[in-house]
Amino acid sequence: MEDFKVLEQKLQEIIAAIQPLDKAAMEKARARVDLLTKPLGSLGRMEDLAVQLAGIHGDLFPVDTAKRVVVMAADHGVTEEGISAYPSEVTAQMVANFTAGGAAINVLGRQGKVEIEVVDMGVKVDTGLPGVKKIRIKSGTDNFRRQAAMTRSEALQALLAGFECAEEAAAAGIKVLATGEMGIGNTTASSALMAALTGYDVSLVVGRGTGLDDQKLRHKQQVVEEALAMHNINEGKVDPFAALCKVGGLEIAALAGLIIGAAAKRIPVVIDGFISSTAALVAVKICPEAFSYLIPSHISAESGHALLMDYLNLKPYINMGMRLGEGTGAVLAMHLVEAAARVTNEMATFEDAGVSNKEEEPSLFEPKGER
Amino acid sequence: MEDFKVLEQKLQEIIAAIQPLDKAAMEKARARVDLLTKPLGSLGRMEDLAVQLAGIHGDLFPVDTAKRVVVMAADHGVTEEGISAYPSEVTAQMVANFTAGGAAINVLGRQGKVEIEVVDMGVKVDTGLPGVKKIRIKSGTDNFRRQAAMTRSEALQALLAGFECAEEAAAAGIKVLATGEMGIGNTTASSALMAALTGYDVSLVVGRGTGLDDQKLRHKQQVVEEALAMHNINEGKVDPFAALCKVGGLEIAALAGLIIGAAAKRIPVVIDGFISSTAALVAVKICPEAFSYLIPSHISAESGHALLMDYLNLKPYINMGMRLGEGTGAVLAMHLVEAAARVTNEMATFEDAGVSNKEEEPSLFEPKGER
Repeated sequence: MEDFKVLEQKLQEIIAAIQPLDKAAMEKARARVDLLTKPLGSLGRMEDLAVQLAGIHGDLFPVDTAKRVVVMAADHGVTEEGISAYPSEVTAQMVANFTAGGAAINVLGRQGKVEIEVVDMGVKVDTGLPGVKKIRIKSGTDNFRRQAAMTRSEALQALLAGFECAEEAAAAGIKVLATGEMGIGNTTASSALMAALTGYDVSLVVGRGTGLDDQKLRHKQQVVEEALAMHNINEGKVDPFAALCKVGGLEIAALAGLIIGAAAKRIPVVIDGFISSTAALVAVKICPEAFSYLIPSHISAESGHALLMDYLNLKPYINMGMRLGEGTGAVLAMHLVEAAARVTNEMATFEDAGVSNKEEEPSLFEPKGER
Repeated sequence: MEDFKVLEQKLQEIIAAIQPLDKAAMEKARARVDLLTKPLGSLGRMEDLAVQLAGIHGDLFPVDTAKRVVVMAADHGVTEEGISAYPSEVTAQMVANFTAGGAAINVLGRQGKVEIEVVDMGVKVDTGLPGVKKIRIKSGTDNFRRQAAMTRSEALQALLAGFECAEEAAAAGIKVLATGEMGIGNTTASSALMAALTGYDVSLVVGRGTGLDDQKLRHKQQVVEEALAMHNINEGKVDPFAALCKVGGLEIAALAGLIIGAAAKRIPVVIDGFISSTAALVAVKICPEAFSYLIPSHISAESGHALLMDYLNLKPYINMGMRLGEGTGAVLAMHLVEAAARVTNEMATFEDAGVSNKEEEPSLFEPKGER
């Protein structure tokens, strides 16, 4: 195991090397989009997405690119407090379901031709399944209602493991990444992190997760409030890495690392729902330059997500009231990313198609003196 | 040409034969969805969509089905009033672009494996292009600021032509339809129709279309107001067919017919943006049973569309600020329709996957006496 200082320096170097988007490529994409056979601006935010993709890629974004969703799985000690509708065992069972191809993310991944990488960041029990990338920093976090979820070294290792997943994806030719996760208890950790890093009231950021009733929802809020007070991170202005260690999760840390890694490798990264967005929050608090590489996907039904999207200044494209996680919303939104790339590359220009452009050729039918 | 009375009776028979959704199939789909390896209800409106699809189809909706967008094209005499940023010629030019494969709808259709049928319902000039289905009720509507846009016979023929497109699609094995359109001036006709049929104020339903400036927007509002007053359809409670004749369009009538035809043939029909939604409004005013067969797609940036979706009680799935028409939003949303079918058919159940279901197997970790 590398020394903490060495790892910390490595992360600092990664962050320092991240570049802003390529302005020339963005201008080129905007100019191209404006020549296409459609009214100016009529593809709305799909045009802005095409321009962002060009800025990330350094040229018009190519079509039919290789895409991957990285599903980070881990368990949470705080499940001891009875904050989830499902037992911790479900994390490992769902990891097995991912490898067998039966989960929602598998179905949507097959539909969208998106590779699925399942990473065991710290599931309670080692599934030993061959289709799982085994990192296993530890067998789930500690119960953050009683102690820090992770040591600083563990959190840093998890971040860097996520970064390495982005590096490997880049080496494998992946051109679009998406974030996914599985971890019973992780809406509790995400709510605690969001409250600590945004200063929003716990009542606004704690939701029903996989399906709590009213009584259990109140209990979950109380657990989060007590944890924030115990760790002294309920007063706003909190160091993001410290908050991650205290109330975060191994998969959340890994996703934050994946996002930073995507920015470092100039790969757009599509952010799924509430847990993934909390990881994005951690990533941009640690590394503000990563923001430009984020692509929103859907608005989750988990309460807190809409507020978090507003806080991050991200406007989701899809609203289906989903709250499943796994990366399902992000994989659906990859269809829109591909669409943005395709219209930019494949649509005819006014000149190609011989279509009149209002700027160049005023209407024959406009009665000139009427108004 | 058939006699008006005969055509009218034909339409009445079609409407009378439309059946409600199949409740048994919907219950079967809901039961299936509830057994899948995900928290109950966690796929949100995708689950409701899967249930609706089953109710339309009469069984679980199949995967990888043949899909078609029908792009109805026509011109509008009201362009004489200077209400569009583009000349009427662009309608025919874009029809040519559709047949050449260079328009946005072509790109998105190729991406989503959606067939594109282009129908000339009444473009000003006959393009004579082989890839275009030629109906051509007439060479564009008359200027509805001066007279009725269509005769009752013309509007009825257009409706029935749309119905026949749905019949042909059903015969060709198409399982999902989408509405698309092209017609310079058709946001003006749609706004007038929407105001007439909903009673909303003209200022709320007239938007910038393909890109009007403030002055031209005010002029467009004035043209619509004057037309509604002249035709005496500005007092709420208006016969929908009469309003369609007076201020509608050939492509709007055809889309209303396509929607009614989809319901008659039990095919789900995905509704694009403002013009398509106005056609849906006409369809459900004429034939309320058609409502259950509608699937919303995106929320258009054209002002009036959000209000129209609320009026129709449809909640769009995609928000990209698009306002292009052609069926582009509907074709994007077909990916979500396919996703709903796939998760229902392909996800593992709790039993298949050996995953704990909270109902059956309470958490080992829930401290029983704590709360």
